[in-house]
Amino acid sequence: MAIDRDAANEIAFNRMCEAEPVLVDVRPAIEVIPGMSSDLILTSGPQIPFDQYTGGQRKAVVYGALYEGLADDYETAEALFAKGEIRVGGCHDYGCVGSVAGIYTASMPVFVVENKKHGNTGFCNFYEGESRKRLNYGFYDDDVRDQLRRIETEIAPIIGEAVRQAGGIPLKPLMRRALHMGDELHSRNTAATLLFGRELFKHLLTLSEGRHREIEQVLDFLSTSDYFFLRISMAASKAIADAARGVEGSSIVTAMTIYCGGYGVRVSGLGDEWFLGPFPTVQARLFEGFTENDIEWIGGESLITETVGLGGFSQAAAFALQSYQGGSPQAMIENNEAMYQIVAGENTDFKIPYFGYRGSPTAIDVLKVRNTGVTPVLDAGLAGRDGGQIGAGVVRAPVECFQSAAEAFERRYGSG
Amino acid sequence: MAIDRDAANEIAFNRMCEAEPVLVDVRPAIEVIPGMSSDLILTSGPQIPFDQYTGGQRKAVVYGALYEGLADDYETAEALFAKGEIRVGGCHDYGCVGSVAGIYTASMPVFVVENKKHGNTGFCNFYEGESRKRLNYGFYDDDVRDQLRRIETEIAPIIGEAVRQAGGIPLKPLMRRALHMGDELHSRNTAATLLFGRELFKHLLTLSEGRHREIEQVLDFLSTSDYFFLRISMAASKAIADAARGVEGSSIVTAMTIYCGGYGVRVSGLGDEWFLGPFPTVQARLFEGFTENDIEWIGGESLITETVGLGGFSQAAAFALQSYQGGSPQAMIENNEAMYQIVAGENTDFKIPYFGYRGSPTAIDVLKVRNTGVTPVLDAGLAGRDGGQIGAGVVRAPVECFQSAAEAFERRYGSG
Repeated sequence: MAIDRDAANEIAFNRMCEAEPVLVDVRPAIEVIPGMSSDLILTSGPQIPFDQYTGGQRKAVVYGALYEGLADDYETAEALFAKGEIRVGGCHDYGCVGSVAGIYTASMPVFVVENKKHGNTGFCNFYEGESRKRLNYGFYDDDVRDQLRRIETEIAPIIGEAVRQAGGIPLKPLMRRALHMGDELHSRNTAATLLFGRELFKHLLTLSEGRHREIEQVLDFLSTSDYFFLRISMAASKAIADAARGVEGSSIVTAMTIYCGGYGVRVSGLGDEWFLGPFPTVQARLFEGFTENDIEWIGGESLITETVGLGGFSQAAAFALQSYQGGSPQAMIENNEAMYQIVAGENTDFKIPYFGYRGSPTAIDVLKVRNTGVTPVLDAGLAGRDGGQIGAGVVRAPVECFQSAAEAFERRYGSG
Repeated sequence: MAIDRDAANEIAFNRMCEAEPVLVDVRPAIEVIPGMSSDLILTSGPQIPFDQYTGGQRKAVVYGALYEGLADDYETAEALFAKGEIRVGGCHDYGCVGSVAGIYTASMPVFVVENKKHGNTGFCNFYEGESRKRLNYGFYDDDVRDQLRRIETEIAPIIGEAVRQAGGIPLKPLMRRALHMGDELHSRNTAATLLFGRELFKHLLTLSEGRHREIEQVLDFLSTSDYFFLRISMAASKAIADAARGVEGSSIVTAMTIYCGGYGVRVSGLGDEWFLGPFPTVQARLFEGFTENDIEWIGGESLITETVGLGGFSQAAAFALQSYQGGSPQAMIENNEAMYQIVAGENTDFKIPYFGYRGSPTAIDVLKVRNTGVTPVLDAGLAGRDGGQIGAGVVRAPVECFQSAAEAFERRYGSG
């Protein structure tokens, strides 16, 4: 079967560039995510049976059920999962992307980002705040629960009101701008959070009549959360990546995932199959007291940002990241430059000032990854064996899943 | 007379680094600037007689008098200046710094920035907004007047209220952070304006009871003014630079100025004398339709930022500046690196991510400038012959004023 792969990839690339993500709402997952139900917990990675979840990711999934009130204690919850009375699902199959373990429950608020150009929608739940102990990092206690509840009942509803009152907030202009202000929109979202806060403020002001205290809480949360925008960036990136999904003959990556079993990629022309491989490698910068032996892979789909030309693919826009994830400016530049070898093109919106406003490398081609051996560079937070964040680092995807995806692609479309 | 110049310069350098600028108030100039009076117009440059002001700077001074209502028309105002019934003064002699022509009148609101560490105060008036036609660029008409009046009566008083309610806003934390977000705090203040806005929000909210419309106007002004923070950065820089003023035996520059007669510098150990030289040179990026022949030097003291290690001395923090003032990232890096040759040290607060968080080159030494021939690099907006901003560029200070300052320094302190 003769296909024009370049033409198909150009379509996929263009669809990513042309996508127009707009934050249209903030609602509980159950109200807006197709297929979500009250007995369902979503987590990063491919859809696998509950008994295949191990370690910190398994714990995080069970903690999700506890948070949602589906069981009173850990053992009961585990038993209910085993019996199928509580179910687990893969985020990407529900239009969601998981940050680290990526736990979604029915009552959790999610950002609803619509791609106004192509009509698809991406979702992401909320950043939990600056504590190192967070559910998405596989940790759960009363503090984690209370903070999640506070976001659910006090923060998210007001942000939702403001977003609706704004008639939606177009995200590309904020994202474009943040890249000129030291963000790469994965591990650094400081500028985007500020820009988003400014968009929101006039609407919060209008809503403030008689409830200043509530609005002040929202402002405080925004002020102390430099990563607040990450989840919006992820939902936007999901909406952008999905625009390139299902293009016949395209070898462009539309999703990447880390889960407790390894690493996976999806390819535009190969449907929703995950091509799996081993865990990624990492150059970590760990919080004091931790070593690389403490790192555990409990999931991660924030690399949806890299999938659309952000994060590691825009590292040279965010030299300030050094202090968070280590590395030198020179290494960041080299990492970023290398990514141009494995993509379909240069982003028409996301530009990197250090590269003279060159568009960021966008739309990863599995064949180029396989042929060059250059694998995606990913900026990422790192979870520890006992839960919680223990640092951050520059993660390198494993080549194997790109190899098997490339083989599958050639089996289906030929190697011409 | 034997002096330890290195020790004196270290004192001056340390005082700059240790200064703690805090925005404590916003008030009409007449209420807070020592020596300000209703018949006085301040402008950039050394104190010179009115008849020595020429071209656009002379016009700007006269326009100031018109704005203040000291005369009904241009000719009458000029005559009153000539008779000494309206007076003109140099900004720096009043603790002020002038942006371009730098026109201050009695009723104009100014930022009051106190250096909490050493007790001195710096002032700067307000950014006029995004129009290219502004009084500080030597342009004046009804629109310019109305905009200045709006700032005076509607914007500044509310910002002042919020600042007082906040109990003052410490500026170093905002400035430090903005340098990690693509600002160099002279020709780029996008992040700092956002950070300042966020500081202000919660106080504006508290003030909003019954006057949402007024607060919304302030928010709109902040949202559309990426250069809003420049004037705060200038007042802070003035407070920082003045901390290093008058250190016996120090050859550190404490002020630089451009005026219609040329360029001038002041030196810590040489009192308040201005050492004068010719105009600077410039690599300009002009708005469409203009050529370098259209540039006119009508004043400029925003280079107080370079005096304390910002602006051109932090260019490599702000690659996004390319789109405003031209130049390549490589040139910005080289410019910035060269500045380390002519300063006393590396700033302990202002750090440049691209340089691996190296402190910005701080405290210009006139002897090092004279000896190396390397002159300060300055980021600057450019005024046109007919008034208004016509572009921006990378300006290079002339060596002559540093030479004559170095000679005066050696005459006084010896050349040991």
